[in-house]
Amino acid sequence: MSCKTIEIQQNITRTPFPNSEKIYVKGKLFDIQVPMRKINLTPTVQIVNEEEVRTENEPVIVYDTSGPFSDPAQTIDLKQGLPRIREKWLNRRSDIEILPCFSSEYGRMRLNNKELEHLRFQHNHLPYKAKKGQKITQMYYAKAGIITPEMEFVAIRENMNNAQLGISTHITPEFVRNEVAIGRAFIPANINHPECEPMIIGRNFLVKINTNIGNSAISSNIEEEVEKAVWSCRWGGDTLMDLSTGANIHETREWIIRNCPVPVGTVPIYQALEKVEGKIELLTWELYKDTLLEQCEQGVDYFTIHAGLLRKHIPYANQRLTGIVSRGGSIMAKWMEIKQQENFLYTHWEDICQILANYDTGVSIGDGLRPGSIFDANDKAQFGELETMSELTQTAWKYNVGVMIEGPGHVPLHKIRENMDKQIKHCFDAPFYTLGPLVTDIAPAYDHITSAIGAAQIGWMGTAMLCYVTPKEHLSLPDKEDVRVGVISYKIAAHAADIAKGHPGVCVRDNALSKARFEFRWKDQFNLSLDPEKAKEYFMARHGAEAEGSQYCTMCGPNFCAMRISKGLREKNN
Amino acid sequence: MSCKTIEIQQNITRTPFPNSEKIYVKGKLFDIQVPMRKINLTPTVQIVNEEEVRTENEPVIVYDTSGPFSDPAQTIDLKQGLPRIREKWLNRRSDIEILPCFSSEYGRMRLNNKELEHLRFQHNHLPYKAKKGQKITQMYYAKAGIITPEMEFVAIRENMNNAQLGISTHITPEFVRNEVAIGRAFIPANINHPECEPMIIGRNFLVKINTNIGNSAISSNIEEEVEKAVWSCRWGGDTLMDLSTGANIHETREWIIRNCPVPVGTVPIYQALEKVEGKIELLTWELYKDTLLEQCEQGVDYFTIHAGLLRKHIPYANQRLTGIVSRGGSIMAKWMEIKQQENFLYTHWEDICQILANYDTGVSIGDGLRPGSIFDANDKAQFGELETMSELTQTAWKYNVGVMIEGPGHVPLHKIRENMDKQIKHCFDAPFYTLGPLVTDIAPAYDHITSAIGAAQIGWMGTAMLCYVTPKEHLSLPDKEDVRVGVISYKIAAHAADIAKGHPGVCVRDNALSKARFEFRWKDQFNLSLDPEKAKEYFMARHGAEAEGSQYCTMCGPNFCAMRISKGLREKNN
Repeated sequence: MSCKTIEIQQNITRTPFPNSEKIYVKGKLFDIQVPMRKINLTPTVQIVNEEEVRTENEPVIVYDTSGPFSDPAQTIDLKQGLPRIREKWLNRRSDIEILPCFSSEYGRMRLNNKELEHLRFQHNHLPYKAKKGQKITQMYYAKAGIITPEMEFVAIRENMNNAQLGISTHITPEFVRNEVAIGRAFIPANINHPECEPMIIGRNFLVKINTNIGNSAISSNIEEEVEKAVWSCRWGGDTLMDLSTGANIHETREWIIRNCPVPVGTVPIYQALEKVEGKIELLTWELYKDTLLEQCEQGVDYFTIHAGLLRKHIPYANQRLTGIVSRGGSIMAKWMEIKQQENFLYTHWEDICQILANYDTGVSIGDGLRPGSIFDANDKAQFGELETMSELTQTAWKYNVGVMIEGPGHVPLHKIRENMDKQIKHCFDAPFYTLGPLVTDIAPAYDHITSAIGAAQIGWMGTAMLCYVTPKEHLSLPDKEDVRVGVISYKIAAHAADIAKGHPGVCVRDNALSKARFEFRWKDQFNLSLDPEKAKEYFMARHGAEAEGSQYCTMCGPNFCAMRISKGLREKNN
Repeated sequence: MSCKTIEIQQNITRTPFPNSEKIYVKGKLFDIQVPMRKINLTPTVQIVNEEEVRTENEPVIVYDTSGPFSDPAQTIDLKQGLPRIREKWLNRRSDIEILPCFSSEYGRMRLNNKELEHLRFQHNHLPYKAKKGQKITQMYYAKAGIITPEMEFVAIRENMNNAQLGISTHITPEFVRNEVAIGRAFIPANINHPECEPMIIGRNFLVKINTNIGNSAISSNIEEEVEKAVWSCRWGGDTLMDLSTGANIHETREWIIRNCPVPVGTVPIYQALEKVEGKIELLTWELYKDTLLEQCEQGVDYFTIHAGLLRKHIPYANQRLTGIVSRGGSIMAKWMEIKQQENFLYTHWEDICQILANYDTGVSIGDGLRPGSIFDANDKAQFGELETMSELTQTAWKYNVGVMIEGPGHVPLHKIRENMDKQIKHCFDAPFYTLGPLVTDIAPAYDHITSAIGAAQIGWMGTAMLCYVTPKEHLSLPDKEDVRVGVISYKIAAHAADIAKGHPGVCVRDNALSKARFEFRWKDQFNLSLDPEKAKEYFMARHGAEAEGSQYCTMCGPNFCAMRISKGLREKNN
């Protein structure tokens, strides 16, 4: 791996965004540095009385998930991992301790296996854990009335445009604290992922997106996965789920977490099943528990756990067109059938919450019965499971564990609202985290679009995080270009939802881009767009570099450019 | 052109859709043949008591806009044009006549210009026109209580799945007649475009999509445009607008119309402006009128006419972030300013309607003041123009001219409903025909997605036709791949809207595809999808041909395939 690591570092995408600077906004309560991207614009040029008059355009500040990779001032060494920015915040606390060794038996076995040396991240850090009897989660602090550095960090981050605009906003550190305290928002922040730049998920904040990466038995490798993580953060992924099911999951995850500036989620049952070579009947609570410890101590920020799917729900799923389409859900359904026992994730829910609370790992309650086709949307199986999630949410909160609720899937447009309404009702405002939903089933190869339509809709109605879908969904695993297209599609959906929800300051970027468009400032148009490279590439392929300064819209040619004519009209009238 | 024509015929896309047959459903009232595509499926194979049990799956019939090109039994000769299927219907009528020569001075000039011989479609048909004093439009017949072959044709077409399912439906020829009579639906059917397969636009029918093609001063040529037309119909374009602004517009359009199985629309002011070399001050009613005659007699099925933009609206547009972004709108605004006169399209509206009524060309009242940015959405300029459209609609209907109302543009999600509500109120249920709308401005290069989100929403609310947007919108002109991506994105939006509206039988294809997915019938999944080629390509690139029969979903590998596990559970329970 060592020589391959060097190769990654050469290939890793570090290009800064065009005409952009990385800026860091300081905290007022804490010594924190909140990263943002400042897009500098060119001046507006007008001819007034035959003289050129130049008017400056204010830079636009945008939310930035790309981490240190897009900051040329930072040295990146994948073998060292990213700077551990949260460590000094943690070290001020007296409620956590460093363990003498890893708690997971499996984790220790991997660490001691000499044959894995070449694959292994050279770990210099032993894990943090809550001291015995101490409560250490963001939710605990919030309930106790304590504002953490993480809370101030996200408050500043969510307000990126407002300070500039002089908009006073309700998103203060205290507002964040309160939203976390009542469970309406969730800050994924495992104490063993101090590299992570804090972010918040909740319906009173910007809509977030998650991207999935992961190797599987049939493809992929560690190097690809780390670069995919960096790549997905670059384009705007707010959290990253590592869904690996293939070989060397433990080592792959370590490389990803150590180099990931956003929260990392996993589905621990996948790795548990790998450990028993895919034999569902060999899954046990003890094996699963060891996997939770292993991953909590690596720094996973939230787990998807399919604890809401019970034996009584399975007959409903048998009436479906497409049965159970959640991997975790189908594994647990089969386990229950083989064992003739209730779902052990449900029966051990309190044990799970106790473990998670020691590391501030959150839980995303998995929807094992999400519909896999619009035919199955909003059926008894789906809503039956949602009711169980209600009880699980309350138990998790009792242990101060942050909660998200996972949602569908495949839902036609007119059935989306019912999902949101029922989720809010049953789950007491816990953040909803949906996969799309896809609003039709007839477009494989375009399911990033079928699902972005549903995602924008459900985001507008209050879903806090949208799990992306790539063009390869249902067909294959995404490559880098698919990840980019998937992320941009979901940034669009999330931003469209933010606009519709009236999040303050959210239209600053839209308006700056539209102004640049009207004034033929082509470079500013590219630089303000979600994907500056692709916008420029499409333009240049036909027009060539010299056209960047041209005074007409490329759709129509000079005589037919509405904007040129309209601008001419206005200048004459001024 | 003749040798180049042969080249077109070699290159034109005629591949039939995989495992599909072209079928023709006969009329009951008239001797008509309504084309549809029948997708044949493979049987479901189950192992019961160690024996293979095969169950047939019913073929799925889908709406087919691809015309004779996808029917291997038809001979295509671009130089002859498509079969003139409506001509025998027209010839049974005593209310139209063949003119001795073309009415347009410009049209005759082009025809007599020997230098254009090599470009010219070898026209063998003189134009049809209403006999003096006769009313001949579909709307006239509908109001008179007469069902035309066109009306029965569209009734059969809209019902493609229902007969098969035994669903009785309200969409009868009489229902069609009534919707056309009251103006809630529009059948574009110029008597000089007898090659066209009739279709209907109205909110009680399937949501339709329009595609734009056209050469411009800076690119493109005739051959490309004809192939683009065939190509856009292939993927599902319901109507086609030829927005050419470059050289040889007259000849290009002739080739397109003679080979186009769907209605063709244009914006006549574009060609009028070409005729005066882009000098807006030289535009006159007489020139415009000659252009209308020229295009009516070529067979254009509907015209976009920006007659709603008045002098009083222009000050509102000057307060905008992005002014006037409609080409037609900006041309007329500038004309009014130069001439200090009211919009001649408005002042000559009755003359226009009289001309159109002679050929059954419909009108799509252009929204010259549609917003070009979400900042400008729903402003005084936009809604002021909409109010003028109200009066124009009533006048057109007085002359029995079919009407559509064009709509935005750029509108955030939460402001879409107001557009639909106001349009229905002001325009008496005339079909709404919108461009997107785009729900955010920050994603050039992905505006097929930003706009498909808005299109699905406004389609659900009642918009009858959605004008597609390609990935190159705002940046460049679309190539063939962009046209395909744009069309598929809009088929998704339209279909999502149809499902949400509860159009009968509309989920047949979704459910068949989902069943195929659950049963690992990969080929059927591909063949049922909107873009079978791309779905198969994505699958094959990673899995290879032998995987088509594989029994697990490719996202997860064999141990983690939810569908395989779920199917196993169900088979055991059966």
